[in-house]
Amino acid sequence: MTKRVGIIGLGHGVFGRRSDATVQELAFEAFAAALEDAGIERKELDASVIGSVPEYHKQRSLAGVVQEYLGLVPKPTWLTEVACASGSAAIRTAWMSIKAGVHDIVAVIGCQKMTELSTPEILALMGRVGEVQWESVFGTTFPAYYALFAQRHIHEFGTTREQMFQVAIKNHFYGAKNPNALFRKEITMDKAKASAQVASPLQVYDCCANADGAACIILACEDRAREISQKTVWLDGMGCATASMSVLKRPGLTSLPSAEAAAAQAYRMAGVTADDIKVADVHDCFTIAEIMAYEDLGFCKKGEGGRFIAERKTYIGGKVAVNVDGGLKAKGHPIGATGVSMTYEIAKQLRGEAGERQVPNADIGLTHNVGGIGQYCFVQVLRRD
Amino acid sequence: MTKRVGIIGLGHGVFGRRSDATVQELAFEAFAAALEDAGIERKELDASVIGSVPEYHKQRSLAGVVQEYLGLVPKPTWLTEVACASGSAAIRTAWMSIKAGVHDIVAVIGCQKMTELSTPEILALMGRVGEVQWESVFGTTFPAYYALFAQRHIHEFGTTREQMFQVAIKNHFYGAKNPNALFRKEITMDKAKASAQVASPLQVYDCCANADGAACIILACEDRAREISQKTVWLDGMGCATASMSVLKRPGLTSLPSAEAAAAQAYRMAGVTADDIKVADVHDCFTIAEIMAYEDLGFCKKGEGGRFIAERKTYIGGKVAVNVDGGLKAKGHPIGATGVSMTYEIAKQLRGEAGERQVPNADIGLTHNVGGIGQYCFVQVLRRD
Repeated sequence: MTKRVGIIGLGHGVFGRRSDATVQELAFEAFAAALEDAGIERKELDASVIGSVPEYHKQRSLAGVVQEYLGLVPKPTWLTEVACASGSAAIRTAWMSIKAGVHDIVAVIGCQKMTELSTPEILALMGRVGEVQWESVFGTTFPAYYALFAQRHIHEFGTTREQMFQVAIKNHFYGAKNPNALFRKEITMDKAKASAQVASPLQVYDCCANADGAACIILACEDRAREISQKTVWLDGMGCATASMSVLKRPGLTSLPSAEAAAAQAYRMAGVTADDIKVADVHDCFTIAEIMAYEDLGFCKKGEGGRFIAERKTYIGGKVAVNVDGGLKAKGHPIGATGVSMTYEIAKQLRGEAGERQVPNADIGLTHNVGGIGQYCFVQVLRRD
Repeated sequence: MTKRVGIIGLGHGVFGRRSDATVQELAFEAFAAALEDAGIERKELDASVIGSVPEYHKQRSLAGVVQEYLGLVPKPTWLTEVACASGSAAIRTAWMSIKAGVHDIVAVIGCQKMTELSTPEILALMGRVGEVQWESVFGTTFPAYYALFAQRHIHEFGTTREQMFQVAIKNHFYGAKNPNALFRKEITMDKAKASAQVASPLQVYDCCANADGAACIILACEDRAREISQKTVWLDGMGCATASMSVLKRPGLTSLPSAEAAAAQAYRMAGVTADDIKVADVHDCFTIAEIMAYEDLGFCKKGEGGRFIAERKTYIGGKVAVNVDGGLKAKGHPIGATGVSMTYEIAKQLRGEAGERQVPNADIGLTHNVGGIGQYCFVQVLRRD
């Protein structure tokens, strides 16, 4: 129970419109890369965990299909679903299975195809991730919820549209350097300002994009990790909390209480503070979400998130490098894969393998993965040896 | 890690067409009963885990909705999905979270509404739980798969239609005595034989029925369980295994390799054999499935399952009492709730609280929960102090 759980293998496919592959093929692509990275054979795995939101796929019973396609039958598998945080929930249950001594080595695969369904079908599904009985029926789609958050942040703290777009500009700047990203091009403030309205004040360049994709990490108990890998990254802080689905019932609209609680748990478990974090992947489903994340995670004070990005504090070389893989905004957001992709990216950074996006002296990193409109949040603190 | 995990609270709603309640209301009904049974307050819980198949509900992000409705915000939650074994997967991850020392007391809620969708919508979803790319497209619905299993069992072992119907007759006999069951009436051999064809040789009275419903169990670490409850039932053996989705790739059609493997794991972990089991809930989605379960679990030899029921060995007073709550056949099968309902029933039996369905001297019990067409199987061995 006092033993650590380490990440010994990393794999990631290209995010985008992947009409070349089924969801199980996407899973295999990431899984094969992670196995090779770990330098182990399939037979050394004890189980797999799938992070995905099942209803986007024509194939049901996704864990079973993936398990067979990866050649992992008859080992155990299970799938976790908590909306856009499904990948982090998968990692958390795998981490618990190892801490419990039930399994020694577990593959976690986040995988999602979002382009099998038509856009109206996807919109209908997404509209139901908010509280259906009392809120969604009144038109609160995802962008509408985050538009409420943005409007209130502007009102309370004077956050500006330029500051929000600066989040998108940063994330596209780094996304352009990430071979796995959906959008590999920089954007300008003029272009962002000229983009179409979605839900006032949010415009197209405030919003992340749906994508197909998969990522895989392989976890091991401390003893096996030390045997197998010279570059283990440790999952030392694991926070998980919830907030009410109904935003009506929340104390305010400028922070996610689940994120604040999950961060506090993760920091405490890892014995670190926000100031120790050198690199982070946060859930920028909309630009305002990244600004709120800075504040909820304690990277800056409440209300100062807009200034924090305007002063380039979250670029490489700033106080803490955030979403230097492109974030959801530029990398794309295959919802079940996103949490695993975040952990992949931070582990790559801590291993010093992020190439031209490498954050110098990255020894402690963080992921922040939000489900729905903040009804779930998972925060991890990762550390290298 | 050597510590046990105990069941300290039990709650169960009525299975059926529950147009009186939303899925979160069904969850609450079972949860409130379990809390009262445990004699604890909500605040003593550390987390909840939801077992459900999300795509049957109009509301997405089910765990978040349930968490709020149960008053458990901001505690952690997650949902597990492995088709009809989703409830058992939820129990398994909750059990691991306690064994890991991450949580001390966790509520597991299996909940499902299946009557929100139209019958064609449900059939379309269920048809996709088999392997879509190479099998479902050729017409292998659920009854068709189990019809293949039945046909082969008849061919290899001389199992008879009467023997299969005897499973249904037994399960209705006990279901009639279960206030939570969907079908509370006995059936006769003549009526079963006269029922409509579904997929030859299976007829209507070979098949379980969709239902709405929820069940809840509360798990605690050994120390807390001993403090809180005088009637803890221990989860001493927890098996989980997979089989290929494609039945084409399986070694045969008369057993589920996942069930054999999961049973071996659970027996080994609990230090018992099949002969020690006094009462079991097994996954009788079709009558042939219960006969296969007898064999896969080692209650009788391979091929002798038909004779085993014909000789009433699985009635109370026989070798091992099986599905004396009515089973899926008579109790109904709200897919995400079923696994939790099984554990609820066996725990009730081990506590000696099963009333007129009580199995004498029930000290060791078992659950066998199959996902899909056997791509997943979870087996638990439960023991009372």
